[in-house]
Amino acid sequence: MDTEAYVRELLAPTAEAARALRLAPTTRKNAVLETFASGLETDGTALLAANALDVADAAAAGLSDALVDRLTLDEERLASMAAALRRVAALDDPVSAVIQETVRPNGLKISKVRVPIGVILMIYESRPNVTADAAGLCLKAGNAVILRGGTESLRSNLAIHALLAAALRESGLPESCAQVVAHPDREIVDGLLGSHEHIQLVIPRGGESLIQTVAETSRIPVIKHYKGVCHVYVDGTSDLNMAGDIVVNAKVQRPGVCNAAETLLIHEKVAERFLGLVAGFLQRAGVELRGCERTRQIVPGAAEATEDDWGREYLDLILAVRVVPDLDAAIAHIARYGSSHSDAIVTDDEAAAERFLSEVDSAAVYVNASTRFTDGGEFGMGAEIGISTDRLHARGPMGLEELTTYKYVVRGCGQIRQ
Amino acid sequence: MDTEAYVRELLAPTAEAARALRLAPTTRKNAVLETFASGLETDGTALLAANALDVADAAAAGLSDALVDRLTLDEERLASMAAALRRVAALDDPVSAVIQETVRPNGLKISKVRVPIGVILMIYESRPNVTADAAGLCLKAGNAVILRGGTESLRSNLAIHALLAAALRESGLPESCAQVVAHPDREIVDGLLGSHEHIQLVIPRGGESLIQTVAETSRIPVIKHYKGVCHVYVDGTSDLNMAGDIVVNAKVQRPGVCNAAETLLIHEKVAERFLGLVAGFLQRAGVELRGCERTRQIVPGAAEATEDDWGREYLDLILAVRVVPDLDAAIAHIARYGSSHSDAIVTDDEAAAERFLSEVDSAAVYVNASTRFTDGGEFGMGAEIGISTDRLHARGPMGLEELTTYKYVVRGCGQIRQ
Repeated sequence: MDTEAYVRELLAPTAEAARALRLAPTTRKNAVLETFASGLETDGTALLAANALDVADAAAAGLSDALVDRLTLDEERLASMAAALRRVAALDDPVSAVIQETVRPNGLKISKVRVPIGVILMIYESRPNVTADAAGLCLKAGNAVILRGGTESLRSNLAIHALLAAALRESGLPESCAQVVAHPDREIVDGLLGSHEHIQLVIPRGGESLIQTVAETSRIPVIKHYKGVCHVYVDGTSDLNMAGDIVVNAKVQRPGVCNAAETLLIHEKVAERFLGLVAGFLQRAGVELRGCERTRQIVPGAAEATEDDWGREYLDLILAVRVVPDLDAAIAHIARYGSSHSDAIVTDDEAAAERFLSEVDSAAVYVNASTRFTDGGEFGMGAEIGISTDRLHARGPMGLEELTTYKYVVRGCGQIRQ
Repeated sequence: MDTEAYVRELLAPTAEAARALRLAPTTRKNAVLETFASGLETDGTALLAANALDVADAAAAGLSDALVDRLTLDEERLASMAAALRRVAALDDPVSAVIQETVRPNGLKISKVRVPIGVILMIYESRPNVTADAAGLCLKAGNAVILRGGTESLRSNLAIHALLAAALRESGLPESCAQVVAHPDREIVDGLLGSHEHIQLVIPRGGESLIQTVAETSRIPVIKHYKGVCHVYVDGTSDLNMAGDIVVNAKVQRPGVCNAAETLLIHEKVAERFLGLVAGFLQRAGVELRGCERTRQIVPGAAEATEDDWGREYLDLILAVRVVPDLDAAIAHIARYGSSHSDAIVTDDEAAAERFLSEVDSAAVYVNASTRFTDGGEFGMGAEIGISTDRLHARGPMGLEELTTYKYVVRGCGQIRQ
């Protein structure tokens, strides 16, 4: 196919779509989300049929049961996608919110007002529900969106998009407010990533190599949703039962996500007691421990951690364990091996807690709580499009506000500059 | 020279320097700025001698008088650089400021706290005073900075840096908190722009080609300080005397800056009266008018505006003038030819004003005031490192807050995720 022509075709209507969305009142955007949600619930036959084809191909191609399951949609999953869209509709519209307001000595009234970013390109590998979630969040924040999901879910994504397009039409907004890249060609993605005049932001979500390729290729600003190498540090004076609960939760509750703990650091003063308390529990929960030398003296069943284990994102029931001489060593370990995502200290020592909170340079730093809370919902944002591991524009969970930028609105009565 | 080795040498100490600055108390950062300012005032002999060499070379190379003047330092200009540093010292420290605070139903206390960005690379072509200004702002916001100024001011920049390095040493902060690229080789810049693991943000300031090259080469997020094609639109029902004052101010007061007006749009209903009022005045002030056909009927002395004139950043005493049928046409013209920097409407019609403010998608939109106010000082930020023409992270004037990012500090008492 002529990929360049296809990219042009995708981009041609985006400026007008972004303009329409930028100026769309909240009620109209919410109506789109509601109609889209209803469509998923009551008009899902074509979608489920398309999904069945994707699932059959994936199974035939030998994808793992877990991946096939992630891909599979059913009535219940459609209902949950619809519910997520309704939750987004219920959130406050960030657009037009006044962030700051000031009257200058010369009488100029300056308001800093939230406005949409423009056109957002989402590139992801995840389950088809991300197609609905991401589109809903981008639209509510007033942004047009181009969605490029995984190839294995292409038919499902196109069928989800058909329902959204119908909802846009019904509300009088251009269909091109949300588009799905309909062909798997890599050149289309490259073409889009070079189109900095048409697209204002790229959000990649998925595996390491996807994100690196996007970051290297893009001429457009990228907010990466990269890996989480999260640490829990158990300090020398801490409630070891609480520490145990937090470590188990951070590792075991959902090991495949970016805010799960990958490395446990323990102050040497409490290493023996704490590992005595928690190692067996973790092992019975199916966690493989990979320890430093001291850890392995205390827990003979632990495997040996190599240099490679520090900084690894297992996304699995594996935990690297290191005994450290003090808080400084823990902070230094995190600075060297962490990914600046989410890191926690468990301690009763307030001074140690404050030092950890200020010196560990991560998107979220915790004292006496599980790293698993780094999440838009848990942070009170209502929803999230992902968790930024970048430092600019948005850091940590990205909700509706993070999908906007701002402008300065200045009202005068004839002021000129002296 | 071995440019790769030089880049490595520049980057090696930056992480430690950034860490030291990130944790530095306000008093220490202010002490650096104060010592640096005093150095410029009382210890400027070597700097003035270095500057004299730069100036002699520039004159010998045939640079224009205006450029040589921009390059030239004297006691008075050093005093004004010192005063600017003291103004930055007097500003509130943005680091550690709490942006938002919330207590979740589960008792977690979540604070969104400002933190420095890290290491910033400034690439600029401007006068040597930018070296002191930019370094002062980056340091106050807790960032390490690598400064790459214009080649013609290299000796001046190195001498300015020597005074700053002495101030850093005296305050016990690493000298490498601020570094000047000491060699003009283009490969060094390219090497730095590829170092996304060491540098967190690039700010280019200068001509169009500099900015485009940086944006195309960089693997690091860039906040561009690009061109300002600013418009003043005089609506059909406006106070024409006020409109005249605003247009003259926006064009004439300082034509060489990015927030000066480049195009005047006039509602056809008032075109004849308004041009009758203002055209002669502008022409006597030395402004060359380049008009559409209707403009030239009214002002026979006006040159013909070609398609190329719409969207041109003259940075000079030239004004493109177009008569438009209505507000919609003015908004459409700005959307097509503007650079989303600063645009103004002059009107007595509130509905027209509000439509202009919401529909024109620029960093700063004005009603009844001159575009010349788009400036960190005029906006109440105290100082600015420049004016962002990008949409992400910072838009419009960038002050100290825009040189920071944030982290989430989460305090719990044993919370785990269900």
